[in-house]
This record gives sequence, structure tokens and C-alpha cells, in this order.
Amino acid sequence: MQKRPVILITNDDGITAPGIVALVNAVKPLGEVVVVAPDSPQSGMGHAITIEDPLRLESVSVFEGVEAYQCSGTPVDCVKLAVDKVLHRKPDLCLSGINHGSNSSVNVIYSGTMSAAMEAAIEGVPAAGFSLLDYNFHADFTAAAHYARKVAGLILGHGLPEGVLLNVNVPKLPLDAIKGMKIARQARAKWQEEFAERIDPRGRKYFWLTGKFVNMDRSRDTDEWALNNGYVSVVPVQFDLTAYAAMDTINKQWKEAGKNA
Amino acid sequence: MQKRPVILITNDDGITAPGIVALVNAVKPLGEVVVVAPDSPQSGMGHAITIEDPLRLESVSVFEGVEAYQCSGTPVDCVKLAVDKVLHRKPDLCLSGINHGSNSSVNVIYSGTMSAAMEAAIEGVPAAGFSLLDYNFHADFTAAAHYARKVAGLILGHGLPEGVLLNVNVPKLPLDAIKGMKIARQARAKWQEEFAERIDPRGRKYFWLTGKFVNMDRSRDTDEWALNNGYVSVVPVQFDLTAYAAMDTINKQWKEAGKNA
Repeated sequence: MQKRPVILITNDDGITAPGIVALVNAVKPLGEVVVVAPDSPQSGMGHAITIEDPLRLESVSVFEGVEAYQCSGTPVDCVKLAVDKVLHRKPDLCLSGINHGSNSSVNVIYSGTMSAAMEAAIEGVPAAGFSLLDYNFHADFTAAAHYARKVAGLILGHGLPEGVLLNVNVPKLPLDAIKGMKIARQARAKWQEEFAERIDPRGRKYFWLTGKFVNMDRSRDTDEWALNNGYVSVVPVQFDLTAYAAMDTINKQWKEAGKNA
Repeated sequence: MQKRPVILITNDDGITAPGIVALVNAVKPLGEVVVVAPDSPQSGMGHAITIEDPLRLESVSVFEGVEAYQCSGTPVDCVKLAVDKVLHRKPDLCLSGINHGSNSSVNVIYSGTMSAAMEAAIEGVPAAGFSLLDYNFHADFTAAAHYARKVAGLILGHGLPEGVLLNVNVPKLPLDAIKGMKIARQARAKWQEEFAERIDPRGRKYFWLTGKFVNMDRSRDTDEWALNNGYVSVVPVQFDLTAYAAMDTINKQWKEAGKNA
């Protein structure tokens, strides 16, 4: 009998979020699932790691028939701890999510969900993060779970190119209204900050982050286009951040400057 | 008279770290410096942002003759608040650091220093992060400050390609022992985790992150090579994480799988 693959699951909304339950149930038939997830919500944690504080790890019974642990750290801490102290080996696949809310375009950089998947990829583990474009705690995860299982199966069957993980976003649509998956690139977009400025009960000023998402990219090959047109977007993501095309330009400009100095 | 450029400075070691003092003093002659930096150390915060909590911003007199604010948030929060609530405009340049310790190769992903610079770049501001390969609080920043000023001047003079920021690391060497700057790529490297496992005074287990840096990349065009051979490494970094080369591969594999399903 072939050994079943070990699938590590984590998220950034915390171990009690409905999104991670949907993901666990979706991929349980594909392998041995082990969950190591934050004990509290960690949205917007990016690739934060806990250096200055100790971490706690507790075994919990949250998912039926699935080994699960809650961790006091960030999503990235969860992956690191899972490999070193829970599995004592690399898993065959690491899945993160399903996130409550979009991680498309530039959100990949702020996302704890995607950072957990990226951490796994850095360790050489095939990985993907899943997000549903619905912030509602009680969102309908049917379609997202369907595509999470599909993508997990495809990765287990075909692997992923070296140094690449997947950022999968699912539009807020019923399963039968979704047109399929599109391999896409990260759209050029940003958040336009507008901090709310308020006065606390003691009379001191405070600020609260708010903002407007601005898509500056009108191309049809982006994740934003795919999502706005009824597709699941699948962006292959890399953690080599080198801007190769810029190396020559800068080299030339600076050499020239050195000569004229 | 030409208007002097506005230079925003931040870091992740906190506003009282010697590294940021060195950076402020190094680039003061180049423009109007404004500092918005965390009120406490934020190492390893990656691209974390503060969503669920209010932020505080206080004017402080830490640097001689320089407008400065401490912020209760992460390095990325500092940049966002600086643009929206302090400067009320985009600065002409954003510099982050000088970090106490390396941010070369894969460390760029965990680094609050680099994430602050990346946030500025996302907002369209030319940006660079600086790090000295010396964790000592009382490290000698002479050489790092020299190169920070040099790089800042080059960026002000030539700009940077769109969507690109710089990751500058300086070896722990006296200024006259450094051979110059090398434009390099991010080395393929990772941290091999080994969590220390301990028992707290109440008898409960806890874990503390530790690890060994492993460079898997022997090429001579990497930042690790440059640093190990007496050069300042300058890596052009991008925040478009799309793995373009992988898009076709995955498209083909998955289409094939769909046909055979």
C-alpha cells in the first residue's frame, strides 16, 4: 500500500475560524492531515516571526479525527514549529487558509495566510494559500473548499516548480457560477491609506488604519481581472525578491556616476 | 533656490537604536530629514500591519535639529502614518535602518527594516533599507553610514527603476577594508530551525526560536558572496512576487490533467 501524504494545514484567522474547518474537511480524503494554527486571529501579520518571546503549543480537539495544535505565535511560527516539533519531518504539502477575505494582488505581502505558505516553500515544501473574497465570519466556503481540494490534488499529482508556491483566491460566488481557474499574475495595486483620527476617553489622540484598495492595472492577465470576471485566480508566487531586470540598469548608472565623481 | 528633498527615515530596532542615529546623521546634509520610527524594537516583524488596534504617534526630540516621531506600531505602520499624517505628501526618498544585523538573502522576507522600505516603494517612493552585519547594540556604524549616504545620494541623483527598492548590507569591517559596492542577487539560503524546548516555572513546556543560517548558493553573483568577500551588497528588490516563469509550466500541466480527468 502506498503511504498517504502528510498535509500540514495552518491559517492566520486562528484555529477556530470556519475557513480552516472548511479546508481541513476538503482535503482530508487526500492524506494525513495535521493542523498547527494560531490560537488567536493574526491577520495582517505578514511574515512576522516571534524572536523575543517564548511560544506555546497545545494539542486540541477541534477537528474530527484530525491531529491538531494551537500555537501562541504567528502563522510563520506555526509552520516552523510544526516541522521541527510536531511532524519532526517536512510535510508533503502545506496548505494555508481558507482566509476570510482577499489576498489577491499586493495583499500577498501583508497576508499571514500567504506568509505561512511561503515559509513552507522556503523550507522546500510544496505549498498554497487559499482565500475567499468574503470577510464574513459565517461566509459560505463551499466553492472555496471545492477549489482548495482540486488545487491540493493537482499539487500532489504534479508538484510545483522549485521556489514557487500558489496564491489561490476564490470569488464570492456560488460554485456553479464560477467559470474555472485562471493562472494569473499579481495585479499592480495598492492601498490608499486614510487613518481615522480619534480622541480616546483620556483626551489623547489615536489613529486607526483604514484605506481604499486601488487597482492601477487594467490588463486581463491579472488576478484582479480573473476574480472580477468569475474565475478563481491562481498566482504562482516566488520568494526570490531580486529584481533581476534592474541589476544591469543600476550597475550602469552607478558606474557612470563613479566616473564623473 | 532648489527645494531640498524630503527624506523619511524609519527602522525596526526602534527610535532609540544607535543604527538610526547613524543613518540620520549620515544623510542630514542631503535633504530635510523627518523620522517616524517604532517606539520599541520590532525585529522580525516582516510586513506586519496593525489592523485591530489603535496607533499612537508622539513627537520626540531624539535627533539634533530633526523632526521626529515615535509610533506604537510596526515599521510598515510607521511609513503609512508618516505619509498620511505627518508629511501629508509622499517623501522624495525613504530610508530604513541602519539595522543591527544582516538582512541579506532570505532575511529580506522576515525583516521589518526591509518591509518598511518596501511599503514606501509600493506607495511609489524611491526607497532603500540598510543593515550592518553586527548585532552588537554598540556596533561601529562608520562604514555603514558612509555607504548609506553614498547610496542615498545615488538614488536622489538617478532614481530607481519602477517597482524596485534596494537592500543594502554592509560587512563588519573598517571602512578602509571594504572593497566597494556590488550589485547582487538574493542568495538561495534558509534558516534551519531548532526550537529550544524548556520548562517554565509553572511546569509548562515552552519553545524558543533559534536556528542556523544555511547558504545553499555557491555562485559569485549573490549578496552572501559579496559580503563574505569584503563588499557592500546591493540587491534590487521587487514587490511583484509573481513567478512569471512558472505560469506556463503550471498552465500546461493542469490543462493536461483536466483532459485526462
